[in-house]
Amino acid sequence: MKLIFLGTSAGRPTVARNVTAIALIFPEHQHRFWLFDAGEGTQHQLLRAKMKLNKLERIFITHLHGDHLYGLPGLLSSRTYFEGAGKLHVYGPPGLRAYLECVMLQSGAHLNYELEITEIEAGPIATGDEDFAVEADELVHRIRSFGYRIVERQRSGPLQLDLLAQRGIRPGPLYGRLKRGEDVVLENGETLRASEVVGPPAPGRIVAILGDTSPCEAAVRLAKDADLLVHEATFGTGMEEKAADYGHSTILQAAQAASLAKAKRLAVTHISARYDEQALAQQISEVRDVFPNIEAAFDFLELILPPH
Amino acid sequence: MKLIFLGTSAGRPTVARNVTAIALIFPEHQHRFWLFDAGEGTQHQLLRAKMKLNKLERIFITHLHGDHLYGLPGLLSSRTYFEGAGKLHVYGPPGLRAYLECVMLQSGAHLNYELEITEIEAGPIATGDEDFAVEADELVHRIRSFGYRIVERQRSGPLQLDLLAQRGIRPGPLYGRLKRGEDVVLENGETLRASEVVGPPAPGRIVAILGDTSPCEAAVRLAKDADLLVHEATFGTGMEEKAADYGHSTILQAAQAASLAKAKRLAVTHISARYDEQALAQQISEVRDVFPNIEAAFDFLELILPPH
Repeated sequence: MKLIFLGTSAGRPTVARNVTAIALIFPEHQHRFWLFDAGEGTQHQLLRAKMKLNKLERIFITHLHGDHLYGLPGLLSSRTYFEGAGKLHVYGPPGLRAYLECVMLQSGAHLNYELEITEIEAGPIATGDEDFAVEADELVHRIRSFGYRIVERQRSGPLQLDLLAQRGIRPGPLYGRLKRGEDVVLENGETLRASEVVGPPAPGRIVAILGDTSPCEAAVRLAKDADLLVHEATFGTGMEEKAADYGHSTILQAAQAASLAKAKRLAVTHISARYDEQALAQQISEVRDVFPNIEAAFDFLELILPPH
Repeated sequence: MKLIFLGTSAGRPTVARNVTAIALIFPEHQHRFWLFDAGEGTQHQLLRAKMKLNKLERIFITHLHGDHLYGLPGLLSSRTYFEGAGKLHVYGPPGLRAYLECVMLQSGAHLNYELEITEIEAGPIATGDEDFAVEADELVHRIRSFGYRIVERQRSGPLQLDLLAQRGIRPGPLYGRLKRGEDVVLENGETLRASEVVGPPAPGRIVAILGDTSPCEAAVRLAKDADLLVHEATFGTGMEEKAADYGHSTILQAAQAASLAKAKRLAVTHISARYDEQALAQQISEVRDVFPNIEAAFDFLELILPPH
């Protein structure tokens, strides 16, 4: 499971940073991936990252401001050119459907795959996904803005191969059934309980990816105990008043949210063009006493989340 | 007067070519410029070309397919960040207004400058521009697609400085009046006709920039005697049947249009991703007997059009 930042600028692109998009990639699932937001030029960034649109299965839009949204229609259209592109499911705030339907109607866009659009509310999202649960909650911004919490489902523990060998059970279909937690009846009539030969389950990984927001309780709830929190930091520390005016956060406020949530790691993004790399590094270093494991995202930064 | 191709790919971006946008720049007018089409990522290309959005005064959209249009909302939004950005006038086919209004409504976009939208029909476009006349005509494509003919207004001829000196007339306000074609009364009571001391007017330059099209009479009319014709060439020579199916042209057909129109120069663009640079160069060389002064556009190609 890894994250790639495809755009990390606030409001408009710069030469170094595109507007917001984040890919969550599942290397253990044939490199399928999800997108969080799709600012203009996201399909260009995917080209540069050599990521194919037929591997994209879900898109979650945090809010409908253009710098998080305007790359969506072009990306959907271009996906038509990719062989084997199956169904795509797009989730986002109310208004997303009207936006997409109007754009596609006026521009005569036709897709050769099934597109499902779901307008979300706060709460669990019924994705039907077997491996991950997704929950949304509403943040505080100038328009409705959501954060997403992605929780990997608990994975069954490892087979205790030495115990199986001791009992003379050879590799075969039984192994799979035991791994899935089934108790099995052996050839000699004995019942072997899965719990005897399968280690304790590994807890799933948790990632929280938030839309634009002022500090709020929902942000902290979504990020609770997360392995990684992705939080906006449009402004530098000390600009809290201006950040509040625009419904944004400062770097300090992002660090505070991560600390309150007891998240393990924080990546801040949605960086204003006013900060150059040096100023940004300085800002980051100044909040390490609030939350040490913080870093500033940049375009094409990859964060790998190893299994627990 | 010069043209910069900001995107030259058909349908979707590639690593080397963005989707369609062309800038017509007026260095003699403080580098103000116009845009023809605005595919996704056009604002990014402008950043790379170091062209500022506050110098952009008019945008002409040829047709509403996404690869010519989806960069428009982001570009309009980003223009708000540029100091001194005055009124912007956008022209395009019917449907353009509904598209822009819906996108801006759903995405909560606010502009801090005046935006005027004009849905065009075939015929002269009343731009009110003093220096250039613009005419549109309807081409043949899967949806309504227009071509634009930009005609620089005839410029007054040069002052014949030697003749003025012979008559003892010194540089001053009289020179400006004569240059503008006014007859003036001299101190000695004589009338000096402008035509006596001003050379013949220089004809204005003509550029034709066409949207996606199959071969048609309107394309040839728009390009009549043009200094430069910009014509799409989505397909290679020999694929005329497929080109017709999709409402496009081949390189041969673009050359034939330039030849019929007696244009002076032809740049083909909207190149399919199926052609690499070598294949494209080969295609171009094969139609030079039809129209010798042809070249294939690439991103950031600049074409300078010197005054006559």
